[in-house]
Amino acid sequence: MKNISLLGSTGSIGTQTLDIVDQHPDKFQIIALSAGSNIELLKQQIDKYSPRLVSVATKEHAEQLSAYVSSSVQVMYGEQGLIEVAAVSEADIVVTAIMGSRGLPATLAAIDAGKQIGLANKETLVTAGHIVMERAKQRGVQILPIDSEHSAIFQCLNGETRKQIERITLTASGGSFRDYTREQLTNVSVEQALKHPNWSMGAKITIDSATMANKGLEVIEAHWLFDVSYEQIDVVIHPESIIHSYVEFVDRSVVAQLGMPDMRVPIQYALTYPDRIANKTERLSLAQIGQLNFRPMDTERYPMLRLAFECGKAGLSAPIVYNAANEVAVDRFLKKEISFLDIERVVETALSKHAGCEVDTIEAIVAVDQEARAIAAAI
Amino acid sequence: MKNISLLGSTGSIGTQTLDIVDQHPDKFQIIALSAGSNIELLKQQIDKYSPRLVSVATKEHAEQLSAYVSSSVQVMYGEQGLIEVAAVSEADIVVTAIMGSRGLPATLAAIDAGKQIGLANKETLVTAGHIVMERAKQRGVQILPIDSEHSAIFQCLNGETRKQIERITLTASGGSFRDYTREQLTNVSVEQALKHPNWSMGAKITIDSATMANKGLEVIEAHWLFDVSYEQIDVVIHPESIIHSYVEFVDRSVVAQLGMPDMRVPIQYALTYPDRIANKTERLSLAQIGQLNFRPMDTERYPMLRLAFECGKAGLSAPIVYNAANEVAVDRFLKKEISFLDIERVVETALSKHAGCEVDTIEAIVAVDQEARAIAAAI
Repeated sequence: MKNISLLGSTGSIGTQTLDIVDQHPDKFQIIALSAGSNIELLKQQIDKYSPRLVSVATKEHAEQLSAYVSSSVQVMYGEQGLIEVAAVSEADIVVTAIMGSRGLPATLAAIDAGKQIGLANKETLVTAGHIVMERAKQRGVQILPIDSEHSAIFQCLNGETRKQIERITLTASGGSFRDYTREQLTNVSVEQALKHPNWSMGAKITIDSATMANKGLEVIEAHWLFDVSYEQIDVVIHPESIIHSYVEFVDRSVVAQLGMPDMRVPIQYALTYPDRIANKTERLSLAQIGQLNFRPMDTERYPMLRLAFECGKAGLSAPIVYNAANEVAVDRFLKKEISFLDIERVVETALSKHAGCEVDTIEAIVAVDQEARAIAAAI
Repeated sequence: MKNISLLGSTGSIGTQTLDIVDQHPDKFQIIALSAGSNIELLKQQIDKYSPRLVSVATKEHAEQLSAYVSSSVQVMYGEQGLIEVAAVSEADIVVTAIMGSRGLPATLAAIDAGKQIGLANKETLVTAGHIVMERAKQRGVQILPIDSEHSAIFQCLNGETRKQIERITLTASGGSFRDYTREQLTNVSVEQALKHPNWSMGAKITIDSATMANKGLEVIEAHWLFDVSYEQIDVVIHPESIIHSYVEFVDRSVVAQLGMPDMRVPIQYALTYPDRIANKTERLSLAQIGQLNFRPMDTERYPMLRLAFECGKAGLSAPIVYNAANEVAVDRFLKKEISFLDIERVVETALSKHAGCEVDTIEAIVAVDQEARAIAAAI
């Protein structure tokens, strides 16, 4: 029996994590849950999984929830609540399925508490990869990626050694607008942008797929997770999302991980690693699919990917600014304050207004993050 | 420095093995060579690699060679010569790149001498998989596959456990006639059959690719190499030969090995396993290739594959008859004695005339093999 603490239980990755728990009640147990403001769904989850500890966004949400749940469930809130859930003593693994920079202190708390990390929070490594990977190494904690691309690379590296990696290639579906020209992107709507062709995901990540910022963040994550240089990371467009990513080794042998697009496979792999167990996801049949397509990545078409590589190579605070400005810009796009193409304009402008600085502490990261958000909000 | 004994040095796999040795003179040394009757090429190889021991097909060839080489090179011939090369004391690894059933006693001799085996002789496992795998296990000898498909599966299983395999899929290019109907196969010539679309290989294996007997033999090999049932083995047509084979695990995750079609990659991997080293083969670019195609295997179109599965499942002597009858039939086709479609007719008829029997010894295997050859020659 593996005890799980799940951060972000009402989101897309959170609910799919619980689906895997449902499929294996003999293997997994939920110890703690955190959610934001979707109290109704959280109530159902508490009834079903009986966690000992839950945390929600605000004091008001916590009070609303406390009135409902039994006294055996401890209810907390805010940043401190999230950290308590991340470090809850009985957990073996902490799944960080929350969005945004709130994930960082929680992930660090889980590492400090010696928990395995099922990492689905992109911002953790993008903004603090140097701190997180070093801390995990010191504590002997495994960071198990839950993103389909990073899980793919992680699986391809099973039994291999890092020094034999020649190149890592992340595949990108191209998102909702992959067949649009730059000109056609001028007037696209929020509703159009939210229609991802292959994956069922949250709004922020679906927009990030369309701008390719999602792949940009994944490139920076891959750099930290697999200890490869940016020159060793490639992106290729693969509309079918069947090959989830691949590794070329020094001997020109390429190992790829494939499957139907279903996040429950990488989620389960993080939960069972290094073991694999059966599940109720769809089997891949290449004969039935018939064809896999690939085309070169075009960074003129997708400037957000070019910017991510530039920020990654620049290091220092640049990736933090990239991430924060993008978060603000996507939020403004979803609120229809700015256009789709304004997202990249906001990020590029925010980056140009920021002078790179050292970020050796969480406080320094938070400061850069907040400054970048203020800049991006004002553009 | 790894010492190599190479059986079949003048053939396709043999010369490509030497190309890998040429690329890494600091890592590999040739200790012994065996060849058949291509004495001119063998002379050049002796001059270049200075093996201590060589063996050729017949006494006449040996005498011809002895007159040429210096006295520091020991020259042997025939079955005994082959066995001496296979068991030569200084060798760390024996590459069995000879065709046909002669490979079996030599492989067993190498296993008994405790050598690692770089296995490129299909008949070894097809005719005596039960004996060879058991013997290798007893002696703690590793069997490292050199076929591109089996090397692919072997690489996909790195760091994984066998009990987590759900299914193994071998890819098949479809061979020279993949776009022909059964009717169009009636009058195809030897010259047409020898034009393989992707791989540069010997004549026998190129014909076997066109009939799909090659894939049939590989299915039986895979059964023995990876300890999977025939129900767990699948074949899919993949005209580009870029995905060399793949494994589906119990969690629906699929791991595949890819590369440009170049036998030097699996050869080198067997020589360096578990290490990987750089080489001068072409890098795979999926963006450049653009498209990978797959279609279901049709055993009506390729009865030789259906027969292989039937023989494998039947066990006992059936795979020996399949292999021996096919060898005779292909030889007769290459000599233009029979038509292309006669190959499968000969094999199916030979199988129907043979009553299955136990084959627990090499002698029993040889007896079945010879009986089957006589039957196949007379059909």
